[in-house]
Amino acid sequence: MAKKVGVVGAAGFAGVELVRLLLAHPEFDLQIITSDELQGRPLAEVYPAFAGVSSLMFEACQPEEFPGCDLVFLAVPHTASLKLTPLFLNKGVSVVDLSADYRLSDADVYELWYQTPHTTPELLDERAFGLPELFPEDLRSAHDRLTQGKPALVACAGCYPTATSLAAAPALRAGVVDETKTIIADAISGVTGAGRKATARTHFCFANENLEAYGVGTHRHTPEIEQILGLKDRLVFTPHLAPLNRGLLSTVTLPLAAEVDLDGDRLHQIYDDFYRENPLVEVLPAGGSPKTSSVAGTDRAQVGVFFERRTRSIIALGAIDNLGKGAAGQAIQCANILCGFPETEGLLGQALPI
Amino acid sequence: MAKKVGVVGAAGFAGVELVRLLLAHPEFDLQIITSDELQGRPLAEVYPAFAGVSSLMFEACQPEEFPGCDLVFLAVPHTASLKLTPLFLNKGVSVVDLSADYRLSDADVYELWYQTPHTTPELLDERAFGLPELFPEDLRSAHDRLTQGKPALVACAGCYPTATSLAAAPALRAGVVDETKTIIADAISGVTGAGRKATARTHFCFANENLEAYGVGTHRHTPEIEQILGLKDRLVFTPHLAPLNRGLLSTVTLPLAAEVDLDGDRLHQIYDDFYRENPLVEVLPAGGSPKTSSVAGTDRAQVGVFFERRTRSIIALGAIDNLGKGAAGQAIQCANILCGFPETEGLLGQALPI
Amino acid sequence: MAKKVGVVGAAGFAGVELVRLLLAHPEFDLQIITSDELQGRPLAEVYPAFAGVSSLMFEACQPEEFPGCDLVFLAVPHTASLKLTPLFLNKGVSVVDLSADYRLSDADVYELWYQTPHTTPELLDERAFGLPELFPEDLRSAHDRLTQGKPALVACAGCYPTATSLAAAPALRAGVVDETKTIIADAISGVTGAGRKATARTHFCFANENLEAYGVGTHRHTPEIEQILGLKDRLVFTPHLAPLNRGLLSTVTLPLAAEVDLDGDRLHQIYDDFYRENPLVEVLPAGGSPKTSSVAGTDRAQVGVFFERRTRSIIALGAIDNLGKGAAGQAIQCANILCGFPETEGLLGQALPI
Amino acid sequence: MAKKVGVVGAAGFAGVELVRLLLAHPEFDLQIITSDELQGRPLAEVYPAFAGVSSLMFEACQPEEFPGCDLVFLAVPHTASLKLTPLFLNKGVSVVDLSADYRLSDADVYELWYQTPHTTPELLDERAFGLPELFPEDLRSAHDRLTQGKPALVACAGCYPTATSLAAAPALRAGVVDETKTIIADAISGVTGAGRKATARTHFCFANENLEAYGVGTHRHTPEIEQILGLKDRLVFTPHLAPLNRGLLSTVTLPLAAEVDLDGDRLHQIYDDFYRENPLVEVLPAGGSPKTSSVAGTDRAQVGVFFERRTRSIIALGAIDNLGKGAAGQAIQCANILCGFPETEGLLGQALPI
Repeated sequence: MAKKVGVVGAAGFAGVELVRLLLAHPEFDLQIITSDELQGRPLAEVYPAFAGVSSLMFEACQPEEFPGCDLVFLAVPHTASLKLTPLFLNKGVSVVDLSADYRLSDADVYELWYQTPHTTPELLDERAFGLPELFPEDLRSAHDRLTQGKPALVACAGCYPTATSLAAAPALRAGVVDETKTIIADAISGVTGAGRKATARTHFCFANENLEAYGVGTHRHTPEIEQILGLKDRLVFTPHLAPLNRGLLSTVTLPLAAEVDLDGDRLHQIYDDFYRENPLVEVLPAGGSPKTSSVAGTDRAQVGVFFERRTRSIIALGAIDNLGKGAAGQAIQCANILCGFPETEGLLGQALPI
Repeated sequence: MAKKVGVVGAAGFAGVELVRLLLAHPEFDLQIITSDELQGRPLAEVYPAFAGVSSLMFEACQPEEFPGCDLVFLAVPHTASLKLTPLFLNKGVSVVDLSADYRLSDADVYELWYQTPHTTPELLDERAFGLPELFPEDLRSAHDRLTQGKPALVACAGCYPTATSLAAAPALRAGVVDETKTIIADAISGVTGAGRKATARTHFCFANENLEAYGVGTHRHTPEIEQILGLKDRLVFTPHLAPLNRGLLSTVTLPLAAEVDLDGDRLHQIYDDFYRENPLVEVLPAGGSPKTSSVAGTDRAQVGVFFERRTRSIIALGAIDNLGKGAAGQAIQCANILCGFPETEGLLGQALPI
Repeated sequence: MAKKVGVVGAAGFAGVELVRLLLAHPEFDLQIITSDELQGRPLAEVYPAFAGVSSLMFEACQPEEFPGCDLVFLAVPHTASLKLTPLFLNKGVSVVDLSADYRLSDADVYELWYQTPHTTPELLDERAFGLPELFPEDLRSAHDRLTQGKPALVACAGCYPTATSLAAAPALRAGVVDETKTIIADAISGVTGAGRKATARTHFCFANENLEAYGVGTHRHTPEIEQILGLKDRLVFTPHLAPLNRGLLSTVTLPLAAEVDLDGDRLHQIYDDFYRENPLVEVLPAGGSPKTSSVAGTDRAQVGVFFERRTRSIIALGAIDNLGKGAAGQAIQCANILCGFPETEGLLGQALPI
Repeated sequence: MAKKVGVVGAAGFAGVELVRLLLAHPEFDLQIITSDELQGRPLAEVYPAFAGVSSLMFEACQPEEFPGCDLVFLAVPHTASLKLTPLFLNKGVSVVDLSADYRLSDADVYELWYQTPHTTPELLDERAFGLPELFPEDLRSAHDRLTQGKPALVACAGCYPTATSLAAAPALRAGVVDETKTIIADAISGVTGAGRKATARTHFCFANENLEAYGVGTHRHTPEIEQILGLKDRLVFTPHLAPLNRGLLSTVTLPLAAEVDLDGDRLHQIYDDFYRENPLVEVLPAGGSPKTSSVAGTDRAQVGVFFERRTRSIIALGAIDNLGKGAAGQAIQCANILCGFPETEGLLGQALPI
């Protein structure tokens, strides 16, 4: 039976991508989209790709009167979710949260990096972390919870953490990485990653024909990636901005453990085996380097892996659409599992070949 | 007195950028531009930015009949320079070579990475390496040679090596980097770096809206960067392609030496001091992250540096125009020094602010 | 019952877009994709968006041994279709032709503009012109023909003719345009319109950050648009190239007939009424200007229309994806009608909102 | 002797381009740059291309205390210039105005299109119109005025009017255009034309991969072009936005007068002759179509012209950099003439070839 859902914060880029996917999803019935800023305006006015497709209007978000949803997607800035999530859960509505508020399992780490106290740390124990390929048991537990009639909370992984962790996890979990050394992740994102807000950074004329790093040493996705990968002050993460709309590529360099012998074929086999059962992660053939254009507009990830004998280094690359597998697609993948639907329901769209 | 110069291989992107700079240079008198492919065609027909500006024609390259040049710039593919350089030197014409043929000081390393034997290894001893900020003595020696009436050979550094080495060298030379560990350079280039040849890679529709790494673990600039920085199998270098014309950003992550204590201010001071006398390298204020758009169309480099205490890592960033400081601009900077002109003659053009 | 189909010339941009759409089409069963240049290579190798999605290989095109297809799509250059079409028809296989070979109803006009004789003019009488919104009866006749067991030939309209004619036709057919004056169509296309061949024109670095007109006064779509709209030497058509992948916008300026009185509302009503029954053409609300990004990746068209009282001019704008409604999408729309399937089967994909 | 100048409204795109050009100009000595919004901030902080190049700061604009300038450039929004211009003139400071406030010679037309009364119509009679190729006598008179010790006012032509008029004027002034018919100008601009303000329109993700017309039938440059070209309700002007930074291409279609006989060669000759003495306008060889990339970053214009016998139409194309010849470059060209400097002083920079 279809689940009734809503999107809170539907005006932002992740929010509107959720709307696009939910409108075509066979099992979710989109009841309401909200935006504090745009309430009262038609979706198709702000995003004209919906002209002739949907007559939805942005509404105000009043959780206490939410129209009978089984589940809400929160595509809101951090701290907003701290306030909204308990309200929805208390009304028995499950929450799939795309914000950062419930990702970090340690409230102190949250406070350190987000410079604001975590107001509902008691929810952290029971929340599922939403990166299904790496934490399948989290979502299975959340599903069990739901079948027992209790609302569930899923904290979806961020865009950089998703691409970086999908690239690095197979090597790390296989135990072939030197645990005494640092891992370097340099990632590049398209401008949708900077959000809908019109700023100097997102102005066409400043973003176009430019490359730059930002948040060097300070980006908040750093502790999230460390948590996912079980690293402790061993990750240097540097994000970059490049002039394209959608796409995120993370290049992760990992030192081989001293005692391990490896070659490119065995390394590739480790990756192939790791993702064998995961329909949304494609490990490229040996020698293949992921392209973001091959996953743009989709909820898939491409992973490639190389072994460089000379320096005994593993170079693992993950490409996603930052709004797809990096945000809205992953949220729906999590919601599918939560609700007992096939994991890929509504998510098998393919990238344009050109 | 003005020097007569020619550009061999003027049809390619580095070659035509040389032409642009030389046409406006007060001390070099451009006599001839050659292209095997385009000989007989007007420059302005192939590059219409020269319409109404220059009536130069591409000519054939016949070194034995070269029209009285003092100096030639070779903007040719590797191996072509192996053949041409001795011919010019034997005629007393100095060579500023933008190809890779004389960059590596060890002919065996050349053969290993370029898969072809080095046919004139005897020239390697006396060639100057063309990266003036890091090897000023090389160019001073070449200048002395020239003043003694002997032709000189300058092997200009490549684009990735330039940006990467300018970013990394101050830390390495200051002795603050752990010599037992690996250094990671992830660099991103605009599409001019892929050359004028029309291929699937350079096709607008494939390069646009895409990010990808290439040459992972195999890029030929790797041994060149190791040579410049005095590393031995300690560099992992991964180049990436992004959808813009001009611009190259290299992000280098270096581990702090175990015994060294450092903070961001001291690190920044090391960089400031290092480039104090170098007019074409701008060290950004502490916290500044270089933008390629700020150096596009110029021969300048921007360098930024960060210290991340958590992982004891130095993150150094270098931004250049791959055709400017990464190719043609650097070649002219070298030629200026070689000929005794001010280092920045003809090179102080500024980037468009937007 | 599903129809078996093939795509001849599947390596080009229109061809591969056909492949993408056909792979997801519920009623067409894609049997074979051919490419003279790429035969023997996997589709996913050339277009990595298909990695993990399709294991199709490009094959040679041998019409005499075509594997039992009911219908083939020809996405080949002009003159190639002149040769292939009769071979397929003679074997009872229907042809949906995306080339220009059967678009012009007058073989002499074809010879004049394409500088080559039309070798099978006898097929022109019975071919259907593939622009369903404007020539529905053509496709109905073709469908009738097919139900009588005879193969049919559909000559799909070109990209510029589609956008231009959808914009101009309602005004022209309503009789409000001055028949003594000239109509001006200035159209802008993304670079996919220039094809897959790597050339100076399609090189990223030349196409990027550039605007230019091309084929001024000589573009071969001119007589095609005149034929569709019933103009005789009354159209000036100037195409332009802009730096984006997909998208085509045609701006058509038409003089109001001397005797006609009109205002913006009545004009808008004419357009609304005209396309009321056409699911793939969206007439924007009065004052709305079409965006190509709203139709990119889709088979929809957006049309906007303005009346400028000051000069008594109608300005009609049509936006399409040149590979969608301008090529592959329209071909499938035609094939749907031909085969008796719903017109929009497999074509209701929506543009990404950002 | 160098003239002391200031730039009011230096934070906007035209303003900062003025700053770039003035810093390198041998005859103008830039004293002050102002910005209400950014006063107190360093230029190089907002536009990092100036890092290491200029230490100028944005200041407040207080005309009554302006530091001894001979001339100010006003790069302010319309209506702001209405207020500032009289203040400067009254203090004896000449004004080169880039805003629209003094372009239209009829204050009623100004009020009609700008929806605000013209508060100083008495200045319209004596102002020079700043489009030197078409109105040389205006600038000569202004120069004479200046040499008599009276301050002058130059109202520089807008970006669309400049490209459109340079393309259309030779045909119109030669008397070969039908005076009873309408002229169509469809123009395309890069996003710098939309200004520095961060809005939905200028957001990278909305402007990128999109084409659209805007201001259809209502753009305020319409009456300005009509004034320049001496048309009266005979111009349909439709501007479009495309995804590039700098560049503006105007395609103007003009009907040949009934009695005139013409061919492409004679038409081309008319254009060649017309601009023979104008160093900043390049008429391309017959058959040449202007590229905006050939003039980006410069103050030059490229013009191409075609005759289409079939419809007896002239198609004239003008390409400029909207910030160069379309704004800052033209303003400096006007100031050069005003001050008696060579017309092209400081303006002969060349476009990057790629």
